[in-house]
Amino acid sequence: MSAGIIDEFQKQREELNKLVMKYAGQGTKRFYSLDSQAYREGALPTKVKELLGLVASFVLRCDDCIKYHIIRCFEEGVSDQELEEALFIGHIVGGTITIPHQRRALQAWEELKKWNALLEF
Amino acid sequence: MSAGIIDEFQKQREELNKLVMKYAGQGTKRFYSLDSQAYREGALPTKVKELLGLVASFVLRCDDCIKYHIIRCFEEGVSDQELEEALFIGHIVGGTITIPHQRRALQAWEELKKWNALLEF
Amino acid sequence: MSAGIIDEFQKQREELNKLVMKYAGQGTKRFYSLDSQAYREGALPTKVKELLGLVASFVLRCDDCIKYHIIRCFEEGVSDQELEEALFIGHIVGGTITIPHQRRALQAWEELKKWNALLEF
Amino acid sequence: MSAGIIDEFQKQREELNKLVMKYAGQGTKRFYSLDSQAYREGALPTKVKELLGLVASFVLRCDDCIKYHIIRCFEEGVSDQELEEALFIGHIVGGTITIPHQRRALQAWEELKKWNALLEF
Amino acid sequence: MSAGIIDEFQKQREELNKLVMKYAGQGTKRFYSLDSQAYREGALPTKVKELLGLVASFVLRCDDCIKYHIIRCFEEGVSDQELEEALFIGHIVGGTITIPHQRRALQAWEELKKWNALLEF
Amino acid sequence: MSAGIIDEFQKQREELNKLVMKYAGQGTKRFYSLDSQAYREGALPTKVKELLGLVASFVLRCDDCIKYHIIRCFEEGVSDQELEEALFIGHIVGGTITIPHQRRALQAWEELKKWNALLEF
Repeated sequence: MSAGIIDEFQKQREELNKLVMKYAGQGTKRFYSLDSQAYREGALPTKVKELLGLVASFVLRCDDCIKYHIIRCFEEGVSDQELEEALFIGHIVGGTITIPHQRRALQAWEELKKWNALLEF
Repeated sequence: MSAGIIDEFQKQREELNKLVMKYAGQGTKRFYSLDSQAYREGALPTKVKELLGLVASFVLRCDDCIKYHIIRCFEEGVSDQELEEALFIGHIVGGTITIPHQRRALQAWEELKKWNALLEF
Repeated sequence: MSAGIIDEFQKQREELNKLVMKYAGQGTKRFYSLDSQAYREGALPTKVKELLGLVASFVLRCDDCIKYHIIRCFEEGVSDQELEEALFIGHIVGGTITIPHQRRALQAWEELKKWNALLEF
Repeated sequence: MSAGIIDEFQKQREELNKLVMKYAGQGTKRFYSLDSQAYREGALPTKVKELLGLVASFVLRCDDCIKYHIIRCFEEGVSDQELEEALFIGHIVGGTITIPHQRRALQAWEELKKWNALLEF
Repeated sequence: MSAGIIDEFQKQREELNKLVMKYAGQGTKRFYSLDSQAYREGALPTKVKELLGLVASFVLRCDDCIKYHIIRCFEEGVSDQELEEALFIGHIVGGTITIPHQRRALQAWEELKKWNALLEF
Repeated sequence: MSAGIIDEFQKQREELNKLVMKYAGQGTKRFYSLDSQAYREGALPTKVKELLGLVASFVLRCDDCIKYHIIRCFEEGVSDQELEEALFIGHIVGGTITIPHQRRALQAWEELKKWNALLEF
């Protein structure tokens, strides 16, 4: 099976994050650490936080950020219908300008589900 | 007690919505109806959906939209800490450019809590 | 009759433009001149160009820019229905985050029509 | 003749739209239907509406949306000069940050014209 | 002398920051601290960093953020011409949609200069 | 040595700029000329102006614009630490949504440094 869009995304992300850390001053490092802190279990469960991160990335229209949160939502057990309802809110708030990102978000989601089905087989 | 920011917002919103409906074609009316549909209980509870709407409005930095969802979150029983965690995600994703909106969001939230305390008294 | 939102907008705009010109270097002056050039009659009539400027300002959600183009559209003879159709496109493309700007755009439009009715009386 | 950027765009768009519809709830389907409704002949001709959609997509800087409206503008008989004037308004309103999108918009336009010239030959 | 726009801005900012800190979790507090750290003298002088913060706020079109950095630029000894050149870059990159913010930025700048002239008298 | 991302960017940019100029009316040409004027040595040195252009492009999240200013900053002798501090401001102001652009900005910077090391050898 050839590498899919998720695989390619994660490889590139990992490689470039090394580069970011090579240049990073203390401030940048702290900001990255705050970023992971934001999604940790709290009064709101991580699953809801990842949906919040997804919809924020969606209306701001950043494909890489959307892909990252799509993966995280999948890992947190978000269902197809929960995803659809969350993206619909992003779609309504952000307008048709988000449609190309919706397409690519679902493409990533579909790939995650196929991989998972293979693994569970 | 003088009218607060919530009261003023709701009065103006109601009045101007009448104007929107005066001019609205069929398409605009349908879009408004889709908008309310998006937040209805589904696979995701309305409370989560209102938090999604809040964070989407927050990173897109629209004060009126934020105020609207702050009121809805309050009505859905969102707690102080849940609100803080949701806004923190918006803040981290959207950056310090969201700070003035964070200030005004909490100003509205504080007012809602004060009114509520008076009513419960 | 007390000054309306259009009147107040135009007074403030005129006054602050003087300030901009006091500080403006040659580059800023040329940019302002390019700006008016963009809306001059060409292959596209000025009326269409003003609708383009309106919808661009609408999806970028700048109330002052919207107000300016609402006035210009009114002067160019845009009808109620033409305005509604143009704003509907902006609304669909830009999403519900544009709703507060739609409200204020129609508020300005309504005021322009009332003044005009008074003048024609 | 190898597939150009328009061809590739349309194939991918069609394929991914199927995926969107596979996941789409009633709300998403209605939003897609509202979207096509927005550009139908009305008080404003479809050609003007497509120019409005193009400029809205241009200032919001979405390449896929721009490509879609570039194709539609071409189909509606927009001339080179009309296109240039519309994009100039988008360029002035949205600033130099739109330049990369202007380049790619004209690349798509140029390809459409070449194909058309071949077909008319 | 009645309170000007700078005075009013600072009073409201101070008051609402107290509210933010009342609700702030550890993450929010750390983000506020990173924010001040970003503008500290380093390889780049604070004056240049404040100009960077100003132009970033300007193209993202946040009046409160612009006002804050206008004050900081004034404190750091930015000259009229340096300000004009920095805002011109923001204006060119961000387009005419920034014009209302340019007007209000210069209004704040002008007020700062007048107050300063009074104090130096 | 195979062509890197900088090389590919510059080739495509040059080619598409020819296309832009083929269609450009007088207004577009003047805007392009204003654009280069904005970064000329003035009260602010070109190096600072390029950093301003970089941070503006960074918070507006345009990869091509970022790449262009990364190259210009490199040519103007910006150091690693100056770059890191400028991008950190962009990162803090614009939020984690800028992270994918930060990755690609540093990837371009790293490539410029490698080429330069080869040339100086």
